[in-house]
Amino acid sequence: MADNNSTRCDLMMFGALGDLAQRKLFPALYQLERSGLLDSGSRILAIARNKVDTAEARKLLQDKLREHVKPHEFDDALVETFLQRVDYLYLDFTDPDGYGALNEWRGTPEGNLIVYMATPPAMYGVIARNLKGANCCTDQTRVVVEKPIGHDLASSKVINDELGEVYREDQLFRIDHYLGKETVQNLIALRFANNLFASQWDQNHISHVEITVAESVGIEGRWGYFDKAGQIRDMIQNHLLQLLCLIAMDPPSDLSADSIRDEKVKVLKALREITPELMDSHVVRGQYTAGTSDGKPVPGYLGEEGANKGSSTETFVALKAEIENWRWSGVPFYIRTGKRLPEKLSQIIIHFKPAPHYIFDPDQKHLANNKLIIRLQPDEGMSLKILTKDQGLDKGMRLRQGPLELTFSETFDADRIPDAYERLLWEVMKGNQYLFVRRDEVEHAWRWVDQVIRNWNDSGEPPKRYAAGTWGPVASIAMITRDGRSWYEDA
Amino acid sequence: MADNNSTRCDLMMFGALGDLAQRKLFPALYQLERSGLLDSGSRILAIARNKVDTAEARKLLQDKLREHVKPHEFDDALVETFLQRVDYLYLDFTDPDGYGALNEWRGTPEGNLIVYMATPPAMYGVIARNLKGANCCTDQTRVVVEKPIGHDLASSKVINDELGEVYREDQLFRIDHYLGKETVQNLIALRFANNLFASQWDQNHISHVEITVAESVGIEGRWGYFDKAGQIRDMIQNHLLQLLCLIAMDPPSDLSADSIRDEKVKVLKALREITPELMDSHVVRGQYTAGTSDGKPVPGYLGEEGANKGSSTETFVALKAEIENWRWSGVPFYIRTGKRLPEKLSQIIIHFKPAPHYIFDPDQKHLANNKLIIRLQPDEGMSLKILTKDQGLDKGMRLRQGPLELTFSETFDADRIPDAYERLLWEVMKGNQYLFVRRDEVEHAWRWVDQVIRNWNDSGEPPKRYAAGTWGPVASIAMITRDGRSWYEDA
Repeated sequence: MADNNSTRCDLMMFGALGDLAQRKLFPALYQLERSGLLDSGSRILAIARNKVDTAEARKLLQDKLREHVKPHEFDDALVETFLQRVDYLYLDFTDPDGYGALNEWRGTPEGNLIVYMATPPAMYGVIARNLKGANCCTDQTRVVVEKPIGHDLASSKVINDELGEVYREDQLFRIDHYLGKETVQNLIALRFANNLFASQWDQNHISHVEITVAESVGIEGRWGYFDKAGQIRDMIQNHLLQLLCLIAMDPPSDLSADSIRDEKVKVLKALREITPELMDSHVVRGQYTAGTSDGKPVPGYLGEEGANKGSSTETFVALKAEIENWRWSGVPFYIRTGKRLPEKLSQIIIHFKPAPHYIFDPDQKHLANNKLIIRLQPDEGMSLKILTKDQGLDKGMRLRQGPLELTFSETFDADRIPDAYERLLWEVMKGNQYLFVRRDEVEHAWRWVDQVIRNWNDSGEPPKRYAAGTWGPVASIAMITRDGRSWYEDA
Repeated sequence: MADNNSTRCDLMMFGALGDLAQRKLFPALYQLERSGLLDSGSRILAIARNKVDTAEARKLLQDKLREHVKPHEFDDALVETFLQRVDYLYLDFTDPDGYGALNEWRGTPEGNLIVYMATPPAMYGVIARNLKGANCCTDQTRVVVEKPIGHDLASSKVINDELGEVYREDQLFRIDHYLGKETVQNLIALRFANNLFASQWDQNHISHVEITVAESVGIEGRWGYFDKAGQIRDMIQNHLLQLLCLIAMDPPSDLSADSIRDEKVKVLKALREITPELMDSHVVRGQYTAGTSDGKPVPGYLGEEGANKGSSTETFVALKAEIENWRWSGVPFYIRTGKRLPEKLSQIIIHFKPAPHYIFDPDQKHLANNKLIIRLQPDEGMSLKILTKDQGLDKGMRLRQGPLELTFSETFDADRIPDAYERLLWEVMKGNQYLFVRRDEVEHAWRWVDQVIRNWNDSGEPPKRYAAGTWGPVASIAMITRDGRSWYEDA
């Protein structure tokens, strides 16, 4: 029988030989094995449409593990132990008759059943229905699904409805892998365990917030897939809005999944609607042209392999989000994300307001606000910019911006930071939903993003161009400059 | 003529061959030479009762510089250049007739006249009168005097009156060398340039403050001198109360010397009087007995060379100071200082209050307050203790206290931190009084300390014993424990 206090599980992995499973999920499961966190009774059923047997599947998995696990972490004996947990099942996901084999594999249930749908979202409903039809579906089954949950509010509702017909909300684990990142989770500790920050986390003390998720890569051979989505669906609707929620949410009264998610939904509901009139001042849409990346010439978005030359899909978005509530009134959240930017960089910057009166050298007044910089990558960690006295004797009371630094990899004993999927899989095994996205979060995020997309479509304006290797269209800089601010650059 | 915008000076050093001058003042002046801060026209007149000529005095100074300057900072050519500025004058400070030679040396005044009295305080009035009698005393003369300014309020008034007969308050530079320490000055930048701290610097956000100035040494051969003073006069009345003032003062409206000193005096005036009834709960007086220092057995205070076995002079004081004003009501300042403690350590710890609600693991609740640790020595710098998420996957939302670190010597480019006397001498040359102690500061500090000494004398109770190499009498620990707190120890 399932035991909610145990992490023992039977994990059915749909799409087990696909890209996500090979690159992320099996390496993460192997790392859990290395950490001794996989219960000795836990088993994995790899399910895919490839006509191979278990031995062949294990060999495939082993090869891919070797590719995606760091050499010094790849231990032959341990990989062997791990692969012993894995069986393989060939299955046409759409064929109800095939699902009986799942029950056979499972036998007398022990441990929790976890179903991981590492498949296109169109399959979620199909698999759920077929599992139910085969009676392979208990009240305790935990179901993990990946983004995207649809491509707009309406289509996300269809998917959520299909899943909802078979599973209760408390069985559904919707992944946004950003929530598994150490630094992202740390936002909760940082905000609510430190009164130094908690007591200043509002419009009285914070002037504005920046969230930047920059990629240096382009489309990486998936032009067709990306072009249907675009940067706002691919990054803003999920990752950046999740970050925004964790930064902006009111303190939850406890750490339960629903207390946290209730607060996140409140933020999404309070987002100011971006009406057509606000588009010019609040949104910048960009598409990269040919330029330079890492010193090498690269093609523009429309010059990539497989490109439709007429596409107006955006590869860059900058938004000025406003949260209409008591905590954040008057505090803009400037968020931006794009491809082919100068570097791979994800960071959140909290700009605190300056002190009410300034008594140091007038020419240094621009320095006089504290900044908390939370780095997601590279070098997960944070940095608090504070002002100290500059040191030379001849400097008098000149100020200097000195960082108080905490870099996780340097500071903590652990020699590695777990990958987001390790943590997320582990939380599924424990049955904790607080790092997973609830249906209403998905839907409120789509509602807000949909209006922007609708405005774009209605206006017919093409995206603004930016050369690969730059920080997006100049309009993005103009957007924040109009408010008397600038995107943060580490000096 | 004197030019207030120039740092060119004629510096008359009384007591130029004494211990302070040799150990601290001439090395500091040499460092100013090294830094290129000594004006090419500046000159120094070394004045003492030793019957030597200028050549001999220079040789003496050179030998002592070699002893007190780090070898890699001792540059033969530069020392030679520096010593060319120095002339020597033999003078009996009490002989008015001798002072005419000072005018001869000075010739036609150029640059500001600085008189540094590196002599016992009993000489201050004598020298001042004799300088005036010889007419060697202009409206612009700056006069530097060292502690102690008396041994109680009454005697300090006598000294200040004697100086005041000859000089205006704005000509007097009373040294407390703690005010020249980089970290101490940095308190001003830290508190008033950083709203993150400024907005939390009060009884709403801070629960209590600790100030510890610990010495590992004992009496170092000056038993007779020290026994007349004791730790409260030697350390609390000046250094620790200065630190307390800089931590506690209201924000000044500007950085002028009097704006800052007005605020410091307000703190001293608001110190709660320690009545006889408060002595048991607010004051601990200690005297060390034989014990261990740096692994070696050491004698007790009464066993030191030259000791009077009946002495009840304290070598340790712990005090609970309370500041009766709006900012600090209910926030105790626990201060302690002593000799023969386990290490040489000076630090200030600001204990912030925890957040109003706690949502993490109950057994970690004791961690939940932020601490700002300001280290004066060793390793000048600061450390902000904040809570982050502990990192292991199996840790869930466990907290961990991580330091945000700033160590001056590591962070700043400057390869050395100037000694306190370098900065203080430089500020005298510039005519800035903000790092010097005003008469009313001295007097209010004495007034507060005097009552404690009076209570000790009235009670006739001997000091409590503590073994050399321990953190003072257990009563010091009991004093803070009764308030549900403990002296901070770095984990």
